[in-house]
Amino acid sequence: MAKPVLTPQSQDFPRWYQEVVAKAEMAENGPARGTMIIRPWGYALWERIASELDQRIKATGHDNVSFPLFIPMEFFEREAAHIEGFSPELAVVTHGGGKELAEPLAVRPTSETVIGDAMSRWIQGYRDLPLLLNQWANVVRWELRPRLFLRTSEFLWQEGHTAHASWDDAQAETLNILHGVYHEVVRDVLAVPVLLGRKTEAEKFPGAEATYTLEGLMRDGKALQMGTSHHLGQNFARAFGITFSDEAGAQQLVYTTSWGVSARVVGGLVMAHGDDRGLRLPPRLAPQQVVVLAIKDETVEVAQRLVADLRAAGVRARTDERTNLSFGRRAVDWELKGVPVRLEVGPRDLAEGNVTLVRRDLGDKQQLSLDGVVAGLPRLLDEMQSALLDDALQRREAATFDVGSAAEVDGAGLFRVPWDALGVEGEARLAERGYTVRCLVTAEGQVPDPDDVGLIAYVARAY
Amino acid sequence: MAKPVLTPQSQDFPRWYQEVVAKAEMAENGPARGTMIIRPWGYALWERIASELDQRIKATGHDNVSFPLFIPMEFFEREAAHIEGFSPELAVVTHGGGKELAEPLAVRPTSETVIGDAMSRWIQGYRDLPLLLNQWANVVRWELRPRLFLRTSEFLWQEGHTAHASWDDAQAETLNILHGVYHEVVRDVLAVPVLLGRKTEAEKFPGAEATYTLEGLMRDGKALQMGTSHHLGQNFARAFGITFSDEAGAQQLVYTTSWGVSARVVGGLVMAHGDDRGLRLPPRLAPQQVVVLAIKDETVEVAQRLVADLRAAGVRARTDERTNLSFGRRAVDWELKGVPVRLEVGPRDLAEGNVTLVRRDLGDKQQLSLDGVVAGLPRLLDEMQSALLDDALQRREAATFDVGSAAEVDGAGLFRVPWDALGVEGEARLAERGYTVRCLVTAEGQVPDPDDVGLIAYVARAY
Repeated sequence: MAKPVLTPQSQDFPRWYQEVVAKAEMAENGPARGTMIIRPWGYALWERIASELDQRIKATGHDNVSFPLFIPMEFFEREAAHIEGFSPELAVVTHGGGKELAEPLAVRPTSETVIGDAMSRWIQGYRDLPLLLNQWANVVRWELRPRLFLRTSEFLWQEGHTAHASWDDAQAETLNILHGVYHEVVRDVLAVPVLLGRKTEAEKFPGAEATYTLEGLMRDGKALQMGTSHHLGQNFARAFGITFSDEAGAQQLVYTTSWGVSARVVGGLVMAHGDDRGLRLPPRLAPQQVVVLAIKDETVEVAQRLVADLRAAGVRARTDERTNLSFGRRAVDWELKGVPVRLEVGPRDLAEGNVTLVRRDLGDKQQLSLDGVVAGLPRLLDEMQSALLDDALQRREAATFDVGSAAEVDGAGLFRVPWDALGVEGEARLAERGYTVRCLVTAEGQVPDPDDVGLIAYVARAY
Repeated sequence: MAKPVLTPQSQDFPRWYQEVVAKAEMAENGPARGTMIIRPWGYALWERIASELDQRIKATGHDNVSFPLFIPMEFFEREAAHIEGFSPELAVVTHGGGKELAEPLAVRPTSETVIGDAMSRWIQGYRDLPLLLNQWANVVRWELRPRLFLRTSEFLWQEGHTAHASWDDAQAETLNILHGVYHEVVRDVLAVPVLLGRKTEAEKFPGAEATYTLEGLMRDGKALQMGTSHHLGQNFARAFGITFSDEAGAQQLVYTTSWGVSARVVGGLVMAHGDDRGLRLPPRLAPQQVVVLAIKDETVEVAQRLVADLRAAGVRARTDERTNLSFGRRAVDWELKGVPVRLEVGPRDLAEGNVTLVRRDLGDKQQLSLDGVVAGLPRLLDEMQSALLDDALQRREAATFDVGSAAEVDGAGLFRVPWDALGVEGEARLAERGYTVRCLVTAEGQVPDPDDVGLIAYVARAY
């Protein structure tokens, strides 16, 4: 057998990740430390995730906007927890247009401050509420140990920012985004099963009253946060004077929320589904669902016809006509990139009216009649979508352990510990050993209300 | 008659522009000088322009990518004209993560350098060419006299970057983007007629061999550059060592191009079509093509049904159910925002089975039967699209003057001057009086080839 293209996951998972991101031509390091170049295949994945999110963000009544990259330093100082959390990570512009600036500017690490300031001008009365905004942007948080997609000094994301008349309205928004927008995309499109829960006080967003999260489990048994949704209470409303006149004419502070998903989920997608041959893309997300590989020049025309038929059937498909390269190298390329289905069109098969179909998830090959292959593909892709989610779910179940105390947490996987048995002190002890509480859920596994008791903590090592 | 909502264009055009951008809730200044907040209506316009461009950029074989915001200063110094052009406009990050950086980083003003560096790694042989990339990004060029959309320190754009095996291939790309992508969107979607031509040496992009441009005429007689496409020759290939091995195995430098359209075209759209009542949006671009205004609570239901029918007919439509506000204020709102068609649903009209249709471009009202109004709308919107382009074309023709020398250039509008009669000296004298050569065309009005002679210069004041 040929030398494996990638270091096996079981041998060195971080190295496998680095190699697959490079060899699938997803991304590479930029010239300035901590920065990242996202190549066409990696960007296509993010673009499709962004589009799925954007549709749902709009359908739930949010408008897209664009706020400035540069924020006066003074803005950060208005909310004590916020500046404490973010000041160690800020990049600062001190010169512009050939001169030193009178006031240095922060490159935005997140936009609660500058959007809060605008909200204070835009909101006058109760009829202006709720105010539902979202932006697609790059943000910068200085990163000492960068890792492609997972942790880079600059990253791409969407950040939603909303203002509401009551605590309840803000809470409903925070949870609707978590369940209705984020969970739908991560589970139904990315096929990554996630735990939904609340962050502990130690892990919540700087300036939030409560942070809700989606946590996925990677194939090495580490957790990855796939998105967060914050109830900011009146903290930013107070800091930026965001008030409204209620129906009785009295001035009130609004309640705000913010929520974000970043391109790090592309890294999550790689680590949740990838195997020793490369990515395995869920069909609903895959930029190309089917690649039709013409083995010889004389089969290019049939391959092109197949692609036209597939597209007509609503399948995202392309040919691979690089007959100057070896068949093996081309097959490896598409396996690395994780395209769900490969159709091989060779002269011998074709003489018998057949093509070969290779499923990326299972790796099995089957001969199919050329005439019938297109009609069966939409259903096959649906089956593969479900199979990938089921596979990840089974892995997570097999890696989830009920334990009674911090001392019993050991190794890879997710540990369920009663929060009452752990507490803030137990959490701190776990942190010394590299574990964090990923989220708190109710005894029934649901997202907790603020006054729920008897919570369960999910503990894991995390990215 | 009521006091006009906006300062009339004829009285003070810059003030009219400022007011319409504010009152249509398109954008406002950010807290840091020169920055801009794009509000939902302004962002929806840019989002639709971006989507029209993106479709065509992809259809012509380009892949989207994302390169870093921060670029080592040293990169800029490798191309002499490039650093000379951009160094006065750079914003510089000197601190990150609480420490002073060993090497300061430039915030990208454009990405030829960092993309050229990556191309030098990605391109090996002739089979890697052409390499066709594009990115949607924010860039920063320090701006002393900011103006919303038209001139801001940070702006949103797309920048295409391609590499080719020959000068001819790069030239074909440069012109295909100009004609096939940019002109199509600006003329057919934005309904703005533009001159296509080449920039003079004085006006070309720093580091380019030649810059091609699209120039629109605004309603005050000033020109606005709507996009540019640059043939970079081998300048960046030399600076960044972008070579390939040709079919004979010899190492060659590639030829590169770059091209961009920014959100300043939103400002161009406002100034090319807007009138004393606000924006006039071309239907193909309008985020909402029809607003159905329920005059009283009892007509809300009919308005909603109309919107459902319009959407089913492929028309972008929404209701205005704000019956608590005066009819006049709501009508003015939608006129400011430039929605092409307003349908007014009032109880008296409705009793007779009618609604009132108001065309934003002409301002005329007509009574139509409720039953027939939906069926006629797609065609009406098409007619309005053409009418807006024709109107702008007639304005431009009326404001274009043939003159024989620089001395005859005077006032608003476009002046056609034989380039031989003008030359570099004439161009410099015009610059002292605030005029620039917007582009050079052939005697037949076409984009010139490099060796064409007898060119015509279009001269104007410009944004």
